[in-house]
Amino acid sequence: MNKHAIYHIADVPYAYGVEKDVLKVRIRVAHDEIDKCEVFFKDRYNGEDEYQVKEIEKRFVTDMFDYFEGEIKLPSRKFKYNFKLTGCNREVLYFSERGSAKELNKEGGFQFPYICNADMYKSPDWLKEGVVYQIFPDRFCNGDKNNDPENVLPWGEPVTTQTMFGGDIQGVINKIDYLDDLGVDIIYFTPVFESTTNHKYNTRDYYKIDPQFGTVETVKELVKRCHEKNIKVLFDAVFNHSGRDFFAFEDVIKNGEKSKYKDWFFIHNFPVDIEKINYDTFADNVSEMPKLNTENPEAVEYLLDVAEYWIKEVGIDGWRLDVCNEVDHKFWREFNKRVKKTNPEAIIIGEIMHESSQWLRGDQMDGIMQYPFRELVMDFFAKRQISSQEFIRGLVQNRVLYMDQINRNQFNLLDSHDTERYLTTCKEDINRLKHTMVFQYSYIGVPYIYYGGEVGMVGEGDPDCRRCMIWEEEKQNKEVLDLYKKLNRIRKDNKVLVYGEFECLYADDNVLITRMYDDKDSVVTILNNNEEKKSIQCNKLNGKYFDMLTEKEIQFDGTIELDSNEMFMIK
Amino acid sequence: MNKHAIYHIADVPYAYGVEKDVLKVRIRVAHDEIDKCEVFFKDRYNGEDEYQVKEIEKRFVTDMFDYFEGEIKLPSRKFKYNFKLTGCNREVLYFSERGSAKELNKEGGFQFPYICNADMYKSPDWLKEGVVYQIFPDRFCNGDKNNDPENVLPWGEPVTTQTMFGGDIQGVINKIDYLDDLGVDIIYFTPVFESTTNHKYNTRDYYKIDPQFGTVETVKELVKRCHEKNIKVLFDAVFNHSGRDFFAFEDVIKNGEKSKYKDWFFIHNFPVDIEKINYDTFADNVSEMPKLNTENPEAVEYLLDVAEYWIKEVGIDGWRLDVCNEVDHKFWREFNKRVKKTNPEAIIIGEIMHESSQWLRGDQMDGIMQYPFRELVMDFFAKRQISSQEFIRGLVQNRVLYMDQINRNQFNLLDSHDTERYLTTCKEDINRLKHTMVFQYSYIGVPYIYYGGEVGMVGEGDPDCRRCMIWEEEKQNKEVLDLYKKLNRIRKDNKVLVYGEFECLYADDNVLITRMYDDKDSVVTILNNNEEKKSIQCNKLNGKYFDMLTEKEIQFDGTIELDSNEMFMIK
Repeated sequence: MNKHAIYHIADVPYAYGVEKDVLKVRIRVAHDEIDKCEVFFKDRYNGEDEYQVKEIEKRFVTDMFDYFEGEIKLPSRKFKYNFKLTGCNREVLYFSERGSAKELNKEGGFQFPYICNADMYKSPDWLKEGVVYQIFPDRFCNGDKNNDPENVLPWGEPVTTQTMFGGDIQGVINKIDYLDDLGVDIIYFTPVFESTTNHKYNTRDYYKIDPQFGTVETVKELVKRCHEKNIKVLFDAVFNHSGRDFFAFEDVIKNGEKSKYKDWFFIHNFPVDIEKINYDTFADNVSEMPKLNTENPEAVEYLLDVAEYWIKEVGIDGWRLDVCNEVDHKFWREFNKRVKKTNPEAIIIGEIMHESSQWLRGDQMDGIMQYPFRELVMDFFAKRQISSQEFIRGLVQNRVLYMDQINRNQFNLLDSHDTERYLTTCKEDINRLKHTMVFQYSYIGVPYIYYGGEVGMVGEGDPDCRRCMIWEEEKQNKEVLDLYKKLNRIRKDNKVLVYGEFECLYADDNVLITRMYDDKDSVVTILNNNEEKKSIQCNKLNGKYFDMLTEKEIQFDGTIELDSNEMFMIK
Repeated sequence: MNKHAIYHIADVPYAYGVEKDVLKVRIRVAHDEIDKCEVFFKDRYNGEDEYQVKEIEKRFVTDMFDYFEGEIKLPSRKFKYNFKLTGCNREVLYFSERGSAKELNKEGGFQFPYICNADMYKSPDWLKEGVVYQIFPDRFCNGDKNNDPENVLPWGEPVTTQTMFGGDIQGVINKIDYLDDLGVDIIYFTPVFESTTNHKYNTRDYYKIDPQFGTVETVKELVKRCHEKNIKVLFDAVFNHSGRDFFAFEDVIKNGEKSKYKDWFFIHNFPVDIEKINYDTFADNVSEMPKLNTENPEAVEYLLDVAEYWIKEVGIDGWRLDVCNEVDHKFWREFNKRVKKTNPEAIIIGEIMHESSQWLRGDQMDGIMQYPFRELVMDFFAKRQISSQEFIRGLVQNRVLYMDQINRNQFNLLDSHDTERYLTTCKEDINRLKHTMVFQYSYIGVPYIYYGGEVGMVGEGDPDCRRCMIWEEEKQNKEVLDLYKKLNRIRKDNKVLVYGEFECLYADDNVLITRMYDDKDSVVTILNNNEEKKSIQCNKLNGKYFDMLTEKEIQFDGTIELDSNEMFMIK
């Protein structure tokens, strides 16, 4: 037995309460070495009682590791536990706080001393069950010509970092039926507050809707109409930095060291010099975006009030947090407290492009924009530069970082306003996009559509990925659109795709067979990510199935013949 | 190379900021496999720059794993990094968020996106440099006969769970010179608030000093006198549960469901029945200790006010938290915020008897009463039932769970009011105790003396470990007392014992040679934990040294001849 591979810690994500008296425990072992994993557990105060024994199941598999996971239950909520591993070679090893041993070390057990209600992470079902649609307001739909900026360009003109196209909130209201018909449940808006740019990530006034987009009344109407269709609305909280013309920064420019806002920012010396940029900014000296000091109590209070205001005033359902990985954890914990106090069903999604354990322990964010998912599907489906095994390993490696409930909240995006359009990454090969889409709906987490992705829009990185939405039906890719509509229906009709366990049944030669399953249901996805036909053996698939993509019956007898780029989603 | 052994996560304790622009990173690898570990790092926004390279050193070693650790520095505070491992067999492997690979994966690096000041953990030097002395007030010294309880027994009578001996705060004041002469720096008092029992863990009134112990004025005098001697004072925060006669619980008993305090506790049904115990309690149905509901905002506010009051009113320097592992993290984060706001130099030490990652991430406690340390020294020195290798492995395994700064704050205790006296565990073999003491002062963390341990007191578990302090000098063990005094002086004179790195130079055959070192200093401890003489080879010790225990010069030439139970602390 490879003892070096064995890992457990009595902490998230290896141990955490999921119900008042139910503890979820996980242990990592070397791949394909362990036949059986049992947990020996008892009340930690109960020195005399024998241990109860519960076998737990293999829930995550990579080419290197297997992860056994299961739930143990004690009315007292006070756990002491050890693992017993039985190797494929019949070797037996016990694993406790003291390490591995041949015998059960009754003293050395791990302890999860008490499941506290307050620490148990929960998120609303609407988040887990949802499909997200991201809107960049200037480019989605122009519903009100009266609020167009002076320099507005005709819809569909080439895009630069400066161009304005007049898209607005009324435009989104006009398209709610379209979004409802598409089948999305959550709209995430990039910033809508007053700002000089088209992207509005340099906020001038956190309390004011940008006049080019509408007014607070338009937004109230938007939220009301969305809620009528059961669509939730997320705003973008740009709290890492403000705009240069934010009143507090303007005050510091004007009054220097005498400004009562001087500690809302990180000013190196006075007076503020916007040419030399003698203050901390977003990224690499972006003078328009002075970094906010989220350790300053007044600044914190101001920003938390903003977060509360928009939930109360217009009824938004949560916040997406811009550059949240450069803002301190203390601030996000306060933010979480304030948001959840204002509306316990509101959600918080961070923008983090890498592993995010620090933020996703349940005390800060509910999930993130899952860029590691994007990187993996790009590498496997769009570019075909990693193997199916590497793809699965990457996914599992990422997933084992977080609690299960968190993984169900992750925004599994293909692209965004900050990346090349996914279809462009696919070199406009629709098959590659379609495979990715089907996988997106066959995996744990929240499917995510960047506006226009559903009609086959293309574009290089920022600013080209921010082109105007294509509304002329003849220019829309109906095949992609129809597939998204179908997948959205499939997701709504098959809750196992939301709440089930994921497993990989076959990963070789660019063919992938995966499954979402629970006690009652099972959906199997088969993807031939190849131009060539493939014939593969998979004894786990035997019998008659219904393919939800073609809506046809299909029969397998262990051998599966796959056409070039063929895909199934069967049950 | 054993790839299964390689572990890193961009989170505490594998990555964390230690200065504004300095990130401490650690990677775990299989023992004795890696010759060299380098970190490739750069600003995460700087796609074009080449990586900087920094070699990091092997800082922790067990029989299974080596841990390389070091500091990387970037003025921008925004890190992207990969590890390069060169095996003893010349094999090269890169390790990133994507796993291990033969080539540097420039895209797949780990990210520590920004070192936020607010998240950087710091603790006061007085904590790290201190030596703790625990006092159980009823048994330490009776300084005021006027406040003795009616049923007071003569000092030194046998102890039961009910006996009262009249020890009090005035008694401690009378003994401050004794404590100062002993050389301790921090006194931790078990509870002093009004309560019916001798241990006072069932609090009646959190705002009142128990009349048997004194008054708020006596405590003010105590703290003032301690501070004059540079001795800090910690109180015991019993916030998991109250006493049954706590005003709020009495109100619930009286008014049932109509009580405005009913949600301060977990009452299963009304009326409260103290015979049937229809409410949650401490441990296993201890009716005298109803569990407090630290999710109830009013209860939380009440307890936080208590924490603040004693810091402000009498100037205590921090809190020890009783049963803190059964109270939710949210509460302790609020507690931390309130305590540090009241006095940024105040400290918080938890009572947790097992691995404590969940509490020691820097946002809740500064350290814990380090019971795993006690278990290991018991097993190695007192009972001689584990090998020196197992001992070192256990220590390192525990230490790698936490940030370095946290390890320096841990209270390395041998015993407490909740355990058998350590000398009793040693079957009263003074040599075993002395070895343990010397090791306690040769390791990372805060040495801890349970009152009377310094004069060789013995006793079985609670209540026998709570005997009256022995003040008759002829009954005190001078050998132990003198050694503690000597060790306290050595610790004060050799800051390398507080701030240095720890390494094990030799661990075999119950002989242990360890070292605390920094750039300038080095203290080597040699312990022959055997009745037999030993002759060992240790080429790292060669030349003339000064033994601080015997205050004599000593010469080694690679061979070390050790007498039965001999020990050295040389520099």
